[in-house]
Amino acid sequence: MVIPEAKEGKAEIWYTEYHTDDLKLSLRVKRFLHTELSRFQRIDVFESHEFGVTLALDSRIQTTERDEFCYHEMLVHPAMMTHPNPERVLIIGGGDGGAAREVLKHPTVKRVVQVELDERVVEVSKKYMPFLSASFSDPRHQLVIGDGFDYLENVTSEFDVVIVDSTDPIGEAKKLFTSEFYSGVKDSLREGGIAVGQAETPFLYPTITKGLYEVVKQVFSNVKLYLTFVPSYQSGMWSFVMGSDGKLEVDRATLEARYRERGLQTKFYNPGVHLGLSELPNFLKSLLGLE
Amino acid sequence: MVIPEAKEGKAEIWYTEYHTDDLKLSLRVKRFLHTELSRFQRIDVFESHEFGVTLALDSRIQTTERDEFCYHEMLVHPAMMTHPNPERVLIIGGGDGGAAREVLKHPTVKRVVQVELDERVVEVSKKYMPFLSASFSDPRHQLVIGDGFDYLENVTSEFDVVIVDSTDPIGEAKKLFTSEFYSGVKDSLREGGIAVGQAETPFLYPTITKGLYEVVKQVFSNVKLYLTFVPSYQSGMWSFVMGSDGKLEVDRATLEARYRERGLQTKFYNPGVHLGLSELPNFLKSLLGLE
Repeated sequence: MVIPEAKEGKAEIWYTEYHTDDLKLSLRVKRFLHTELSRFQRIDVFESHEFGVTLALDSRIQTTERDEFCYHEMLVHPAMMTHPNPERVLIIGGGDGGAAREVLKHPTVKRVVQVELDERVVEVSKKYMPFLSASFSDPRHQLVIGDGFDYLENVTSEFDVVIVDSTDPIGEAKKLFTSEFYSGVKDSLREGGIAVGQAETPFLYPTITKGLYEVVKQVFSNVKLYLTFVPSYQSGMWSFVMGSDGKLEVDRATLEARYRERGLQTKFYNPGVHLGLSELPNFLKSLLGLE
Repeated sequence: MVIPEAKEGKAEIWYTEYHTDDLKLSLRVKRFLHTELSRFQRIDVFESHEFGVTLALDSRIQTTERDEFCYHEMLVHPAMMTHPNPERVLIIGGGDGGAAREVLKHPTVKRVVQVELDERVVEVSKKYMPFLSASFSDPRHQLVIGDGFDYLENVTSEFDVVIVDSTDPIGEAKKLFTSEFYSGVKDSLREGGIAVGQAETPFLYPTITKGLYEVVKQVFSNVKLYLTFVPSYQSGMWSFVMGSDGKLEVDRATLEARYRERGLQTKFYNPGVHLGLSELPNFLKSLLGLE
């Protein structure tokens, strides 16, 4: 139910997220849709005036209706477009369905396996965020409820692209930022396969970004970090790390041809942005030891 | 004086900025340094735990010690680097001194005229933000206290680069977003001269960004919009518009040569970022009618 204006006085209802102990972002709430404590985390869904339907897990905004495209498109397409023919894709996490939606835009894809720990995130997303979760009904998509780390133990040379759409490295998600995990990811890749993981905000949490970059660099022959804008996320500056034993560099003409051939429809991603957001500011190059 | 912890209970002091009626960012305050109502606006300076010394004008963060480089470098260097030999530069606004500091890094510069409406901003910056305002004492720098709009009426073919470092288009700054103003800017430019202005956040205020883009496009033969990240600004996604009757495209090799020859030291800007952040996401291209 939409919260009506009071007849007298002024009171507003706000969702406030602490980005650090000293910095917080607040969204005015239009209506509360859902809250629960699942086996793994607190799941909140509310509609905010500025960002529309908003999903938060353990007090971190994961997805908003208004800016999820900035995140999901940039999580998925750089790796998918770098691969010449991604047929089989593994998504670890991403229970809201946004990553799967973007993967399934590529007509090369024959099969997507998604391993999500918390079934409740999927159920809640299906109910409140159909714009993200519709892809769960695509016949190419297979949902596995379980631990991504464990799942990888029994998988070898299976996937062309592995996408790690994790929450922050706290609690269960912590192990998704380790070299043990990325070694498993690497084993699950076919030749020329590419892994990508979300790497947090290098502005507010540079040690996390650098840590994941070092992990991926250690496991794969080639590594690449790139940025995107996500206004509802901490600092608005977000990063991703790609790793592969194949090459990660791809030229503009190739990207443009693939974008056309695959008939992609995107609101954020395009080949120019792919290349452009791989150009890192000096402070980030210094952080990563790239100069 | 740094605010000490209370002996009992818990209370924190926060600076909260409304980015829209429905979205706000809050910085925990370490100490208040200054507040006044000048002839033109309220000037606040405080030290925040997350962003260091912070300047706000009429309740809008203008500059923070921690992320001002993201803004000032990207306001100044793309235009300065696109010009082969910027000798005379005009800055309109920018009273904190950050834009002038970046301009003066270019050894080609012989003279910088800065026209700032509010002398108090300059004085406050000199006192509390010497890391920005040191350039005011550079012999090449001339400060004019006055109205940028009026100043342009008497200037013809004088500058190689004009930098418009304005506040949001409210009150006095409103006229700095009009074609009358940019016509004056154009008249003040020498042949091949380049103008650049901050164009707000295209994510939260797309009509302002588009409006300024259209103004600059109408006045100049060539126009170009590019982005930067500014974590303390609304949405974290900021834009700038360049205009010129000369060309605005410049290749990587040329930029790299100029960067080296001019001996620039930067924390955000580099030639790759210059080109990369000129690659616009699809939603922005659509907004600007670029596809």
